[in-house]
Amino acid sequence: MLNIGYIGLGIMGKSMAKNILRAGFPLWVHNRSNAAVEEMVSLGAIAARTPREVADLTDVVFTNLPDSPDVEKVTLGPQGIIEASRPGLIVVDNSTIKPGVSRKIAAELLKKGMFAIDAPVSGGDVGAKNGTLAIMAGGSAEALQKIMPVLMAVGKTVTHVGGPGAGQVAKAANQIMVAAQMAALGELLVFARKSGVDPEKVIAAIKSGAAQCWAIDTKPQRLFKGERGPGFKAYMQLKDLRIVIETAREYHIPLPAAEVHADYFKRMVELGMGELDNSAVVGVVEKAAGADILKGET
Amino acid sequence: MLNIGYIGLGIMGKSMAKNILRAGFPLWVHNRSNAAVEEMVSLGAIAARTPREVADLTDVVFTNLPDSPDVEKVTLGPQGIIEASRPGLIVVDNSTIKPGVSRKIAAELLKKGMFAIDAPVSGGDVGAKNGTLAIMAGGSAEALQKIMPVLMAVGKTVTHVGGPGAGQVAKAANQIMVAAQMAALGELLVFARKSGVDPEKVIAAIKSGAAQCWAIDTKPQRLFKGERGPGFKAYMQLKDLRIVIETAREYHIPLPAAEVHADYFKRMVELGMGELDNSAVVGVVEKAAGADILKGET
Repeated sequence: MLNIGYIGLGIMGKSMAKNILRAGFPLWVHNRSNAAVEEMVSLGAIAARTPREVADLTDVVFTNLPDSPDVEKVTLGPQGIIEASRPGLIVVDNSTIKPGVSRKIAAELLKKGMFAIDAPVSGGDVGAKNGTLAIMAGGSAEALQKIMPVLMAVGKTVTHVGGPGAGQVAKAANQIMVAAQMAALGELLVFARKSGVDPEKVIAAIKSGAAQCWAIDTKPQRLFKGERGPGFKAYMQLKDLRIVIETAREYHIPLPAAEVHADYFKRMVELGMGELDNSAVVGVVEKAAGADILKGET
Repeated sequence: MLNIGYIGLGIMGKSMAKNILRAGFPLWVHNRSNAAVEEMVSLGAIAARTPREVADLTDVVFTNLPDSPDVEKVTLGPQGIIEASRPGLIVVDNSTIKPGVSRKIAAELLKKGMFAIDAPVSGGDVGAKNGTLAIMAGGSAEALQKIMPVLMAVGKTVTHVGGPGAGQVAKAANQIMVAAQMAALGELLVFARKSGVDPEKVIAAIKSGAAQCWAIDTKPQRLFKGERGPGFKAYMQLKDLRIVIETAREYHIPLPAAEVHADYFKRMVELGMGELDNSAVVGVVEKAAGADILKGET
């Protein structure tokens, strides 16, 4: 049985680590703050003091951290995974970070005989809890095959997209579409209300046609109840769109629509709505138009 | 049995008129050019010389025309429907036009005791042929009830969205979302290719998650075969987005994302791609990025 390490026990990471433990894998954990570590230890995990120590004791190390610099530091920095120098170790990053950083990490680890798999996920906190995440993987097919039993403990589907960084490219592509749908949903709901038409009727009229999408299937019913909490937080949507835009600039890809959507989520954060669900971006449109989708003019 | 009139035998109108005829309704037709009229007459319809004459002889008159001024002219202009002065006549507009124009037409017809239903459709030429359109209706509930047997001959679902113009508002809302998805699909496919990742693998990785939509379900498989023909023509998508934007300006609704999407389809037309499918908007992104989604750098 593979020995597993998990570094980064946030909302997503802790749920995923629990599912790995539940599947019967011996688990070492490390986290910046201690509360989550203690919870995992009470469930049977073993605490490790540094990322390097996690790597010293395991066969597969997962990381799940907020942003690119965090993953770079934990993997390549002092007392980082790379210092364990364990040829054959597989390092799986579940964070959503810049594809270029994933590629750099993979190249550095390979120099020491270690394999990197970038494996960002989609499906939110609910998917993480239930072990039903969609996993988009980049890196060596052979290394991916070896860790499949572990991935199947945290996710429902694993798609091997390509070499190092390809999983991050797929996740960024995913966020281009998700942001577009959330912004369009916000615009069309306010458009309906300000045009004097019931937004709920409009959703009923369009939901089964060419506009059909997961966003329309799931979000309006919550918005019409006045529920705007997460789900997927707006400031994380903004972070992911920044990855999209910075990567697009590196590769000279003009993405004017994604840039406008990023502006929407930047505005959300400025308006103090950063902790709300990404579908609450409708609030930015409401504010600009002086309207409330639930009751008309404000 | 209701006597039906159909004015405007374009791609959509002709298919819809045929389905009305097939359902057994006596049908009078009128069209600017003669070929489509002759075809309909050969199938059992009766030709009328003017919109007024159609209205003189029928109980329900449908219109299906390119744009707002065309509908206004045929309905309210010289030799138009309004001149028939037939109280109780129901005038159903299947065109996609500005909600404000639908409201004006409804108000003018009502002065003569006639009822207007704006009933734009979604589902494309295939839906029109197969009688499976989604119909978004605005106007009197009573009038709508009377024409239901006729609408069910051309569509699969009818949603009564609200009073006059509400159907057009729903259709415009629909186009806000459809345009957003098509532009995002174009941006993410080029993003993947330019980032060195196979766009087909990216679609496979994201299609079942939060990005799921009809556009991703149906369009990429055609684009990956090099097929960019319509479907729904780009210049019609642009026309519909202009309705969105003009209406939004009237009601003081800032829609920055819809405006960027309109720019995309405007650029398509400028590049000579106006007759292609709306999903071929990916060509604008390819051109700007110097890439081809099928084979990488151009």
